[in-house]
Amino acid sequence: MALIVHKYGGTSMGSVERIKNVAKRVAKWHKAGHKMVVVPSAMSGETNRLLGLARDITPQPDPRELDMIASTGEQVSVGLLAIALHAEGLEAVSYAGWQVPIKTDSAFTKARISEIDGGRVLADLDAGKVVVITGFQGVDPEGHIATLGRGGSDTSAVAIAAALAADECLIYTDVDGVYTTDPRVVEEARRLDRVTFEEMLEMASLGSKVLQIRSVEFAGKYQVKTRVLSSLTDPLIPLEEEMHSGTLITFEEDETMEKAVISGIAFQRDEARIAVMGVPDKPGIAYQILGPVADANIDIDMIIQNTSVDGKTDFTFTVGRGDYQRATEILNTQVKDHVKAERVLGDPKVSKVSVVGVGMRSHVGIASTMFRTLSEEGINIQMISTSEIKISVLIDEKYTELAVRALHKAFELDQA
Amino acid sequence: MALIVHKYGGTSMGSVERIKNVAKRVAKWHKAGHKMVVVPSAMSGETNRLLGLARDITPQPDPRELDMIASTGEQVSVGLLAIALHAEGLEAVSYAGWQVPIKTDSAFTKARISEIDGGRVLADLDAGKVVVITGFQGVDPEGHIATLGRGGSDTSAVAIAAALAADECLIYTDVDGVYTTDPRVVEEARRLDRVTFEEMLEMASLGSKVLQIRSVEFAGKYQVKTRVLSSLTDPLIPLEEEMHSGTLITFEEDETMEKAVISGIAFQRDEARIAVMGVPDKPGIAYQILGPVADANIDIDMIIQNTSVDGKTDFTFTVGRGDYQRATEILNTQVKDHVKAERVLGDPKVSKVSVVGVGMRSHVGIASTMFRTLSEEGINIQMISTSEIKISVLIDEKYTELAVRALHKAFELDQA
Repeated sequence: MALIVHKYGGTSMGSVERIKNVAKRVAKWHKAGHKMVVVPSAMSGETNRLLGLARDITPQPDPRELDMIASTGEQVSVGLLAIALHAEGLEAVSYAGWQVPIKTDSAFTKARISEIDGGRVLADLDAGKVVVITGFQGVDPEGHIATLGRGGSDTSAVAIAAALAADECLIYTDVDGVYTTDPRVVEEARRLDRVTFEEMLEMASLGSKVLQIRSVEFAGKYQVKTRVLSSLTDPLIPLEEEMHSGTLITFEEDETMEKAVISGIAFQRDEARIAVMGVPDKPGIAYQILGPVADANIDIDMIIQNTSVDGKTDFTFTVGRGDYQRATEILNTQVKDHVKAERVLGDPKVSKVSVVGVGMRSHVGIASTMFRTLSEEGINIQMISTSEIKISVLIDEKYTELAVRALHKAFELDQA
Repeated sequence: MALIVHKYGGTSMGSVERIKNVAKRVAKWHKAGHKMVVVPSAMSGETNRLLGLARDITPQPDPRELDMIASTGEQVSVGLLAIALHAEGLEAVSYAGWQVPIKTDSAFTKARISEIDGGRVLADLDAGKVVVITGFQGVDPEGHIATLGRGGSDTSAVAIAAALAADECLIYTDVDGVYTTDPRVVEEARRLDRVTFEEMLEMASLGSKVLQIRSVEFAGKYQVKTRVLSSLTDPLIPLEEEMHSGTLITFEEDETMEKAVISGIAFQRDEARIAVMGVPDKPGIAYQILGPVADANIDIDMIIQNTSVDGKTDFTFTVGRGDYQRATEILNTQVKDHVKAERVLGDPKVSKVSVVGVGMRSHVGIASTMFRTLSEEGINIQMISTSEIKISVLIDEKYTELAVRALHKAFELDQA
């Protein structure tokens, strides 16, 4: 008998029929003797509908009130799921985040969980109840509802699993696990049986949108055994089969088996590159260039500063494509003359492609294999950025698929 | 400067445009220097949509979970209204019932308010904020959300007004006040400028569905000056005009003006009459007959027991038409033989018509005028029931309109 947390996404909760299927699946686990906590998202489309109502009133609604509104989607879900569990003959009770309570800071629409008091939930579990808890939300120190941002239910589930010292957190989603790369781009992409949370972190941050990145951070920090698996299987498939399906995110490197050097190829389209050329190389220059951009709430991703020549340097960075125009405008009006730059250049049509793997730490030659492969395909590398377990390159967007396929093959990811 | 509570129904909150109009109206009051608390219902149709989802899962959903689900309708409304108030340039903050807190008992789906802590709201008002509070709901001693039942937002508004010692509670609705009778039945029906809360109580309980009856009880118990007025006027009509419109429910009889003897004619269709005939007249017989009916959650309205003849009596009562079949079935199967009744008779097509007025206390002859009027129209009276301020008769349903019109004229309600 274990304590298990299930998380179901909006698609899994998308209709009365699907909610009944979720209840059937949870009932199967409960009947096998497990203590069950379930964290559902809002029914698909509901959060957008609610935010749409608010934005119809005013384009920039108050974040505190947005959270008041958006949090109701999950509250409806937990009530409906509890009712569906009753219909399966189980005792079940639903809680909104504030009822647990799941405590957060006051950063409305992007709050972070600070503390979860698991006492009430554990008492219900001991009494044989299934406990259904709203994802995506908690309560701040002043008693206001605060949401965790898009995808926040993943984080809720993992954080709840951590607080309850759950044996495993199962994230049910409409894909059946984490792949070596996007199967829509590379037909030979393979599902990984396991990845380390660090790899998952890089995958998530690089655009493999299986899990919200903060949930992965939580899983790593609190060592929560987390599994990503499909909610599209028959809810009554044998438990033994289900509990070994999907991809397990581990917080320890598996020493008993030969670990692949590279776990996957991640990529992110819709990037834009901006270069501020011929800037006098003085202390503080990076802040003078990026400060105004960050102040406009534009996320900056890769940053490169070239070695200076004749006291001048080039400064290049990437932003999301949606922010490209605004960012170049800010640079041209507020920054260029101020920092005495020669010119501002840019390319709004670039992609980032990355190879990710903890094995990289102990293997040389990953970078050269990557660069050779791209070179053989005639793909020019515009920028390079590296971390301990990943190498990212920026390329012309039109080569994205070609690059991903070539790298997937070069690192033999199609072979188990 | 006064402390004013506004309550808006689902129709007034039915669309983004209407919510903006509510905000304009509230802003007008706030700008005139009043401290404003607003209690909106869920957007029209929303509560039914939510309950429908739950009933699609299982026909008899758990009441505690139903409340979890249904309470979200008002939570969305308060958030949207707060945002609309911001757009009007006001500071505003929304609270769900549990955040105030509005404390209730644990009778889910029909909870009663036990206590309201107004401290937080008063602090916000002192800081110049408009406070928007969910109607229809509160939180029970264990921290579960509990709703007050259909129309509960009226009760929330009046209870909040009582807790805050508000100067007036304005209930905005899609009718412009309380009428001498239903204007759809009697063209000459007049809007009353004021009614006493006792008259309103009888009117509400007798089917004039302007206000939830518990809200009127609250208004009486805590002497809350409550006004029913139209939400369909231009939100920017002069404040002076608006604050004297509608119908004021007073908790004191107005001694300075000649009071009409009768304030209105109320009526309730969809009643059914059931008679248990020839029952031995023994102590406890009423309980033996009505107990099983009440146990089946069937509301019983009028009750009459005839003087016994030869140790036998007839026992007659009314129920809602929807419960008629179930009630007669219970009587025939569980009661009739047990109490040794001769037979069970019934008529599922009757109406109750009542004359209501505090003036009745000090005037004789109301009953005789009523009975004479009905007699002149050839309408047979099946049952009579009286209270201090009303006389009700049960008649064949097909005479409802005729009876109401004749009584309205007989008591000169068409004349101001």
